[in-house]
Amino acid sequence: MRFAVAQSGGPTCAINASLVGIYKAAVEMSNKVHNRLPISVIGVRNGIQGLMDEQFVDLSCELTSAEMVDLLRKTPSTALGSCRFRLPAVEQDESLYRKVQYVLQKNAIDAFFYIGGNDSMDTVAKLSKWLTEQGSNIRVIGVPKTIDNDLVGTDHTPGFGSAAKYVAMTMQEVVRDSSVYRLPSVTICEIMGRDAGWLTASTCLLRANGEVAPHLIYLPEHEFSTVQFVHDIQKAMENHRSVVVAVSEGITLPHSAAYRSGANDAFGHAYLSGVGKYLEQLVRDEIGCKVRSIELNVMQRCAAHLASATDLDESETVGRYAVELALQGQSGCMVTLQRDTGIASYRITCSHIAASSVANVTRTFPAAWINNEGNDVTEEAIDYFLPLIQGEVLPTMRNGMPEHFRFAT
Amino acid sequence: MRFAVAQSGGPTCAINASLVGIYKAAVEMSNKVHNRLPISVIGVRNGIQGLMDEQFVDLSCELTSAEMVDLLRKTPSTALGSCRFRLPAVEQDESLYRKVQYVLQKNAIDAFFYIGGNDSMDTVAKLSKWLTEQGSNIRVIGVPKTIDNDLVGTDHTPGFGSAAKYVAMTMQEVVRDSSVYRLPSVTICEIMGRDAGWLTASTCLLRANGEVAPHLIYLPEHEFSTVQFVHDIQKAMENHRSVVVAVSEGITLPHSAAYRSGANDAFGHAYLSGVGKYLEQLVRDEIGCKVRSIELNVMQRCAAHLASATDLDESETVGRYAVELALQGQSGCMVTLQRDTGIASYRITCSHIAASSVANVTRTFPAAWINNEGNDVTEEAIDYFLPLIQGEVLPTMRNGMPEHFRFAT
Repeated sequence: MRFAVAQSGGPTCAINASLVGIYKAAVEMSNKVHNRLPISVIGVRNGIQGLMDEQFVDLSCELTSAEMVDLLRKTPSTALGSCRFRLPAVEQDESLYRKVQYVLQKNAIDAFFYIGGNDSMDTVAKLSKWLTEQGSNIRVIGVPKTIDNDLVGTDHTPGFGSAAKYVAMTMQEVVRDSSVYRLPSVTICEIMGRDAGWLTASTCLLRANGEVAPHLIYLPEHEFSTVQFVHDIQKAMENHRSVVVAVSEGITLPHSAAYRSGANDAFGHAYLSGVGKYLEQLVRDEIGCKVRSIELNVMQRCAAHLASATDLDESETVGRYAVELALQGQSGCMVTLQRDTGIASYRITCSHIAASSVANVTRTFPAAWINNEGNDVTEEAIDYFLPLIQGEVLPTMRNGMPEHFRFAT
Repeated sequence: MRFAVAQSGGPTCAINASLVGIYKAAVEMSNKVHNRLPISVIGVRNGIQGLMDEQFVDLSCELTSAEMVDLLRKTPSTALGSCRFRLPAVEQDESLYRKVQYVLQKNAIDAFFYIGGNDSMDTVAKLSKWLTEQGSNIRVIGVPKTIDNDLVGTDHTPGFGSAAKYVAMTMQEVVRDSSVYRLPSVTICEIMGRDAGWLTASTCLLRANGEVAPHLIYLPEHEFSTVQFVHDIQKAMENHRSVVVAVSEGITLPHSAAYRSGANDAFGHAYLSGVGKYLEQLVRDEIGCKVRSIELNVMQRCAAHLASATDLDESETVGRYAVELALQGQSGCMVTLQRDTGIASYRITCSHIAASSVANVTRTFPAAWINNEGNDVTEEAIDYFLPLIQGEVLPTMRNGMPEHFRFAT
């Protein structure tokens, strides 16, 4: 048997762990049946685009030791590269589907695993449907990943826990940094998540460690008012000398076009400015205190040196489970994580859902977990997030820096 | 005997390790002489300002266990708070000097330790000179700290190694993140250091781990030309699909006033934009490729979860040495770190220098270590930086996040 695996969408710290999960499950199954059914695994570069171009990596040739597999598992970003390409509808361009089928058949691929988010599940749904209609037996399985935690059908998404751990740990350090002076100050942390506020909400985790901060949390799921924001800050400053705010990049600002590119510098260049910088200036103008904004930027999705061990374990597990699904003859589905309820401790089991019901849908942060004022989250959120960031993954160090896996070819 | 310790200036990951060094040395000396000469240590809040206001913390009451001392040692930022206050010249306001002397004498302080950078050494020099002129026997000792590494008389400064380790590790992860797509792209990392490029230059450390990035490095020590910058980027893009650039916040841009606040948004707010955002827009306009800028912001100085063990050890050592200097009767000096030359391995010994010769002087990055084009550093820089980031400091974890020390009172 032959498997092909590709990675797609924005990188995370855990997406290589899912690749490793698929690879290890294939190797272990090959060994189990005494090589009567050996499974080889091909790595596909740059997602579905690389599949069409036959940009392949022979994983068994590259992963020559357990140490290398372990290194790949904890290396951030997509080791196979990624793409931002979505299959168009069959009616729009059938030739792409024929091309993919041709390549899969030519290379004797029995199952194609696509590790990605929303858009990737759209590709999984479309491609599996078309292959089935063509009478092909090739299976297409979706493996979830996104730091946004916004896929439906799953308790949470692989990659999210590590991002949440990074954001919480970084904000905790920023809280220490911002509270050293006597002068009142405001610090605004802008956090990723255009459509869903999960990652921004997860900053409530600091309170599990006895911090009061963040004093205010703003999510895209709740209407945002600059007047209310300034009022909230002023109220928080009555009780706290150093106010720390978590704000999602996805909140809707008034005249949002204007704050992004409405201004030009001396050379006529349009300025780019995010939500954080905008709110920083708003506080400076309206309150006049010391204020700083911090954009956590791509570090949120690539800071593997403090990945969550729980996240990496689960990411490997969903990869392994995807192999089981393929061997069961499933296709067009995505692996999901289900949290066992009714038990005190945290326990996860895998299941699956039709990829078509995941594609193009955003699972937003529950309205019931946002306070009435729309500037904080409730205790339930802490309980939900806390298990996801548990455990540390020690990087393999060389020269005082982590060693990263890179494919040689 | 009674010591007073204060912290000043911008926070670092290692400034509490120096506080611990002073505290431990005092405790150990007290024990050594069988309490015939016990030394108590008072923590002063918010630097010299807190000294004048007698904002004190009794360290022996707060640091009740070895675990707490260890926790303080690896907690980022200034646990005692900080200030941005410089003593004016005696001629300008003698009353402040009288006030400081009054407080020191009233509290029977024999030695005052000031952990800080450039400005703090100015205070050390002025205060010790005045006290001596008054016939006072109170010693004033400067303990260096700054992530900028720009103090003269010392091989490097405590706090710098941890910042360099953070910057290198983060850039390495950003390199992984930025290279996943097929499209050519440019990533610009803006790094702290207004007057000296040490921290930006330290990104060359990635090459010790087999990375090619950063492909370009720009320091304030070399003239900056936007025309040359665009040309450099274009040339780098001929050989690398994903170009990663390290740029100091301190480079001089044309019309620098304009790019910082010359533009207004739709509400008439002035935009704040740093060097990174400016260069991002320049690349977008002139080259038109995918481009992103990343400001490493205060994380550079507070990311204690990946502090350099070498840095924390040395920071504690300079604190201990400061106590030795005070007991020897020294005053008005700053502890320095001297690198043993002529031996293959890295070894540091402590010495001291007059604080007056450190104050108001910036030690810039050596011109001889910058290449002719002014867009990279030489091999000597890697050799200089590499020992400073060695060793890891494991945070004490609680709930998946580091535990931080905070004074109870």
